[in-house]
Amino acid sequence: MNILVTLNSNYIKPLKVMLKSLFLNNDKESFTIYLMHSSLLKEELSELREFIENQGNLLEIIEIKDDYFSDAPILLHYTKEMYYRLLAFKFLPQDLDRILYLDPDILVINSVSGLYNQDISGHLYAAAYHDILSIREINKVRLNAYDIDAYYNSGVLLMNLELQRKIVDEQEIYNFVQKNGQKLIMPDQDILNALYSQKIKSLDERLYNYDTRYYRYYKLKNNGICDMDYIFENTVILHFCGKKKPWKKKYSGKFHALYKHYEKLALNNR
Amino acid sequence: MNILVTLNSNYIKPLKVMLKSLFLNNDKESFTIYLMHSSLLKEELSELREFIENQGNLLEIIEIKDDYFSDAPILLHYTKEMYYRLLAFKFLPQDLDRILYLDPDILVINSVSGLYNQDISGHLYAAAYHDILSIREINKVRLNAYDIDAYYNSGVLLMNLELQRKIVDEQEIYNFVQKNGQKLIMPDQDILNALYSQKIKSLDERLYNYDTRYYRYYKLKNNGICDMDYIFENTVILHFCGKKKPWKKKYSGKFHALYKHYEKLALNNR
Repeated sequence: MNILVTLNSNYIKPLKVMLKSLFLNNDKESFTIYLMHSSLLKEELSELREFIENQGNLLEIIEIKDDYFSDAPILLHYTKEMYYRLLAFKFLPQDLDRILYLDPDILVINSVSGLYNQDISGHLYAAAYHDILSIREINKVRLNAYDIDAYYNSGVLLMNLELQRKIVDEQEIYNFVQKNGQKLIMPDQDILNALYSQKIKSLDERLYNYDTRYYRYYKLKNNGICDMDYIFENTVILHFCGKKKPWKKKYSGKFHALYKHYEKLALNNR
Repeated sequence: MNILVTLNSNYIKPLKVMLKSLFLNNDKESFTIYLMHSSLLKEELSELREFIENQGNLLEIIEIKDDYFSDAPILLHYTKEMYYRLLAFKFLPQDLDRILYLDPDILVINSVSGLYNQDISGHLYAAAYHDILSIREINKVRLNAYDIDAYYNSGVLLMNLELQRKIVDEQEIYNFVQKNGQKLIMPDQDILNALYSQKIKSLDERLYNYDTRYYRYYKLKNNGICDMDYIFENTVILHFCGKKKPWKKKYSGKFHALYKHYEKLALNNR
């Protein structure tokens, strides 16, 4: 399976935790991790390589030179890295037909094979939207000039690379940023939704992009079904959305201890 | 290492979870699990044996016939199993010098070797008391005729079997129960404290008997030191004390997700 990650030095530790959980809960699979970056140091890269290869998987490093994006508009509050996810298909081997992008603030607690191998023909991506009133409505209103039904979260993206090569237009993305720069809060996620919302296959967030802030909400909304037993049986991806992150000192949340468990395994590489 | 457990059918699942966590976090050690019981079925025993042996460890079954305790007083609300822990030394092989008793409502999240191998010469047991005002004072008052400094929790007991064989007097225990029957709430724990409190080596509860109900209390009392990082680095035993148990449907608590994680590993025997 092909996994895509894009990151800078601040996220190496969380990335290891995410990968550890992925590898442990998918120990029959073999993974190639494609890492897109522009700023990681040699030592950081070789440490990551060792970590991944020690667990029987492969690392492919894709270094993006800044001059690639010399024509791209940049925003005050974001770097050019915001384009990596959207334009990954340009940098990945041209014979890959699909790849699963994963944010580093994630734990994978079950098999990803159902997610990875599903039919996405006709769709550019598969993604989940967080159906919590506040998140959904605010973002729809913000991007109201665009025809979006749902505001998808870009932290878990199954990518149809074949179709993206045919359809996704780099210049169109730049034009969008030029026009809407001021309005963009989460640039790549906003672009994804504004331009491609109609071509995204919708995933069940409870399975593939469970927002760890909302345990009680998921449980209530699903008549109590979506409890801890359900999660450990069914949920594949726990996503630690929001500003408070489980690797930070002051974090507190339902999945805090679970995160620390995987963090310990990852950092001891056991 | 020698581990002692005593249980009935209701606790087989939690026992497996406890053992799974013990084995996973002590994978360089080999364990002999001594199981004292009077009511487990053949199939339950052979399932347990398979579970334990599959992980490279040994099971020794000690079946206690009810007639052994024909002279022992029994209490309305408790069975004769209350004596197993206190009199285990009579049923265990006479060449064992020490054994670690563990309740089944426990997760072992770090190496037990520091606990197991410590010096206990001159002490019958090593145990921790829960230094929470309410627990401590209520139990001291309740057993006020006896000279106890602390009310030790009997869920984690490192036993000095050699010394017990010399000192612990079966008849003294029965006399105590006869006299105090009405007052006893947690019989074996009450007996342990009333009769042997002076001969118990005190363990740090944060390390060896962390009461999972009191995360905020531990953290506050220790100036914030005792946070999740501390626990995963240092704590060996998480004890799910109290009536609400993490394998029950309505449980909710700081270590819920962590428990479910080990439960899943145990029940799939992965």
